[in-house]
Amino acid sequence: MSENYVVIMAGGRGERFWPESRLNRPKHLLPIVGEDPMLRQALDRIKGLVPDARILILTNVDQVDAIRGMCPELPAENIVAEPVGRDTAPAVGLAALLVEQRDPHGVFVILPSDHVVHDAAGFRCVLTKAFDLASQGDHLVTIGIEATHPATGYGYIEKGPVMLDSSGVAKGFGVERFVEKPDLATAKAYVESGRFLWNAGIFVWSVQSIHAAMARYHPSLAQGLARIREAVRGGKELGEVLASEYPQLDRISIDYAVMEKASNAVVIPSEFDWDDVGEWPAIERHSDKDESGNLLRGLALAVDSRDNIVYNDGGRVTALLGVEDLIVVHTADATLVCPRSKAQEIKNVLKELRDREETRRFL
Amino acid sequence: MSENYVVIMAGGRGERFWPESRLNRPKHLLPIVGEDPMLRQALDRIKGLVPDARILILTNVDQVDAIRGMCPELPAENIVAEPVGRDTAPAVGLAALLVEQRDPHGVFVILPSDHVVHDAAGFRCVLTKAFDLASQGDHLVTIGIEATHPATGYGYIEKGPVMLDSSGVAKGFGVERFVEKPDLATAKAYVESGRFLWNAGIFVWSVQSIHAAMARYHPSLAQGLARIREAVRGGKELGEVLASEYPQLDRISIDYAVMEKASNAVVIPSEFDWDDVGEWPAIERHSDKDESGNLLRGLALAVDSRDNIVYNDGGRVTALLGVEDLIVVHTADATLVCPRSKAQEIKNVLKELRDREETRRFL
Repeated sequence: MSENYVVIMAGGRGERFWPESRLNRPKHLLPIVGEDPMLRQALDRIKGLVPDARILILTNVDQVDAIRGMCPELPAENIVAEPVGRDTAPAVGLAALLVEQRDPHGVFVILPSDHVVHDAAGFRCVLTKAFDLASQGDHLVTIGIEATHPATGYGYIEKGPVMLDSSGVAKGFGVERFVEKPDLATAKAYVESGRFLWNAGIFVWSVQSIHAAMARYHPSLAQGLARIREAVRGGKELGEVLASEYPQLDRISIDYAVMEKASNAVVIPSEFDWDDVGEWPAIERHSDKDESGNLLRGLALAVDSRDNIVYNDGGRVTALLGVEDLIVVHTADATLVCPRSKAQEIKNVLKELRDREETRRFL
Repeated sequence: MSENYVVIMAGGRGERFWPESRLNRPKHLLPIVGEDPMLRQALDRIKGLVPDARILILTNVDQVDAIRGMCPELPAENIVAEPVGRDTAPAVGLAALLVEQRDPHGVFVILPSDHVVHDAAGFRCVLTKAFDLASQGDHLVTIGIEATHPATGYGYIEKGPVMLDSSGVAKGFGVERFVEKPDLATAKAYVESGRFLWNAGIFVWSVQSIHAAMARYHPSLAQGLARIREAVRGGKELGEVLASEYPQLDRISIDYAVMEKASNAVVIPSEFDWDDVGEWPAIERHSDKDESGNLLRGLALAVDSRDNIVYNDGGRVTALLGVEDLIVVHTADATLVCPRSKAQEIKNVLKELRDREETRRFL
C-alpha cells in the first residue's frame, strides 16, 4: 500500500503584489485574501488529507525560516529550500526524490501555495479521488477546474476520452492538449465548447510514474535528478548536494517538460471554487465593497470616489478624494498608485526600482 | 526712540496639507517648501532686522514646546501660547500687550509663519520702510504684494492716494479698500487696473496706533484686552490671565475688526516674491519637475505617468504607474490620493476622519 504525500510549492518571489509583496515576502507569505497568509491557508485546507509528517514544502533559502515559523506542525526537515529557482520541473523532480526517500512507492500531489479555494471539503474530496487514480496505475493526474467564465489569465486543458471505473463511473478524462493563456475570443469558444478546463497547476502522481515520465520526456533532467539521488544515497547531506547539482538542472516548467508531451496524462474535472489571484484586481473577487464600489482593506476613506481598490496592511490610513478606478497599496515604507487596468504592468515599477541604487531596498 | 519688534503668528492648525500636516503639526512646523520648517525659514528671513530678544512668536499650547525647540535663539518667554484660537484680531491685541510690556512705544510687525519668500533681503528692506512709516505717525501699515497674475486665492488691497515724503518719494499709499478673494474675471480686472495688490497678512504699527484703532473700531475687543493688561499689571501670571480672559474675546479677524474700517490704513507696495502656499498644488511653484511634469519630493518613481505631485516625508518610496494629474502624499501612517483639482476639498477628508472614532488619531 502506497502512502500519500502533499508537496506545496512555495518558492515564488513577490512581484505582482508589490509593494505588499517583496522579493523575500511573496504572496504566499501574505494574507492577500483572507486573514492568514496564503500558504497557511493552503496548509489548513488540506488538513486531514495526509498526516502532517507527510506534508512537504519546497521553498528557497530566503524563505525557509519564515515558513518553518508559519508551519510549526510540520517537521523542520519537511521544509526544503531550493538553492536557486529553476522553474517547476526541477522542483517536481526534487519533490519526487524527497517523497521517494520516505516511501519509494509514494504518491504525491503538487500544490501551489498561493491560490484561493474556499471549498476546502470539495478540494480534499477531489484530491482523494486523484490520489486513488494515481495509485492505481501509471497516470499523470492533473486537476482541471470547470471554467465558469472566459478567463484570459489561465491556461486551459482540453478533455480527451472519458475514463470509467469498473462500475461505469467517470474517474477522469484523458488530456487532448494543454493550451496557453488564450485571447478573449478563444477563451469564449473554449468555455462554450464544454471541453476545456482551467489548468490549476495541481498534479498527482506516484514517484515511479513521474520518474518514468521525466526519463522519457526530459532525460537530461532525469539524469541530473539521478545524480542528486545517488549522492544522497551515498551519504552526502542533501543541502550540499543541491547546492552543487541543482543549479545545473534545466530551467523548465513541468508543463513543458512533461505534461504537454505525456500520453498518460489524466485530468479530473473539478467544481470547487478556485482562483489563483494573480494580480491586485483579483482580490475584488473575494472582498466586499462599499456602496460606491470601493474595496477598502484596512483603514481607508473614499470620499467622492468610486470603484477603487485600497489595500493597507497595518495601522495606517489611506484617504481617497475624488478618484476612481485606482489601485492604491500603502505599506509602512512604500505606496503604489496605478489604474486598475495597469495592474499587469507592475513589473515596470519593479524594473525601475531595480535600476536605481537607492530604491533597490524596496524590492 | 521706539524699539522695533517682530511678532510671528504661528497658531494655525494643519488642514490643507494633510496628511503631512496634522492638527498639532501644522504647515509652519513642516518643510512644505524648502529644507527647513516654514516657521524656521520665517525666522531666518528676518535675521538682523531686530535683535532676537525682540522677536516674539504667538502659538497655541500644543505647539509651544516644539516651537521653543525649533527656535532656540529666542528667549523661552517670547514664545507665547494662546489658550484657544480666537482668529487674528485677539492675537494682534495680545501681541500689542506683549510688546507694550517691553516698550510702551514699541512698533511691531505681524508676520505669518508659513509663507514662502525667497527674496529675504527685499523682504527686510520693505519691513524697514514699514517700521519707519509706522514709527513716524498714527499709521496702520500693511504690505501689499504687486499682483503678478490674477490669483483667485488671495485677498486684494486697492491703493488710494500716494503718500510722499518730504523729498517727494512715495512712502506708501492710502488704502481705498480691502477686498475678499475675487473670481477669476474680477481678479483679471484687478491686475489690469494696476491699482490692486495682494493682501499678504503683514501689518506694521505702533502699540499706541493699534490700541487706538481697536478702541475705536472694535471696542469690546479693546475692553477685553484692557482687562488682560490690568490683571497682568496687578501681578497675575500671564498664562493664568489668558486662560480665563482670552476665550471670552470676540472671534474675529484683524481685517474685519480693524483694517477694513480704519481711515489710517497705509499700504506699501512690494515686489519681493511672495506665496502663501495654501494647498498642495502650490508647492509646484517652488519645485523642479521631471521631464514628464511630475513633481517628485522624496523617493518616488513615476512610470508612464505625468503631471503628478508626489510628496514623501521620510525613507519611504512612492511609485506611480500610468496615472496623471494626481496628488499623492505618503507619510509613515497615512496616504492621500486625490486629483490636483480637488486639493481644496481636503477638508472633506478631514471631516470624515473626524466623524469616525477609529480615524480621529490621523487628524
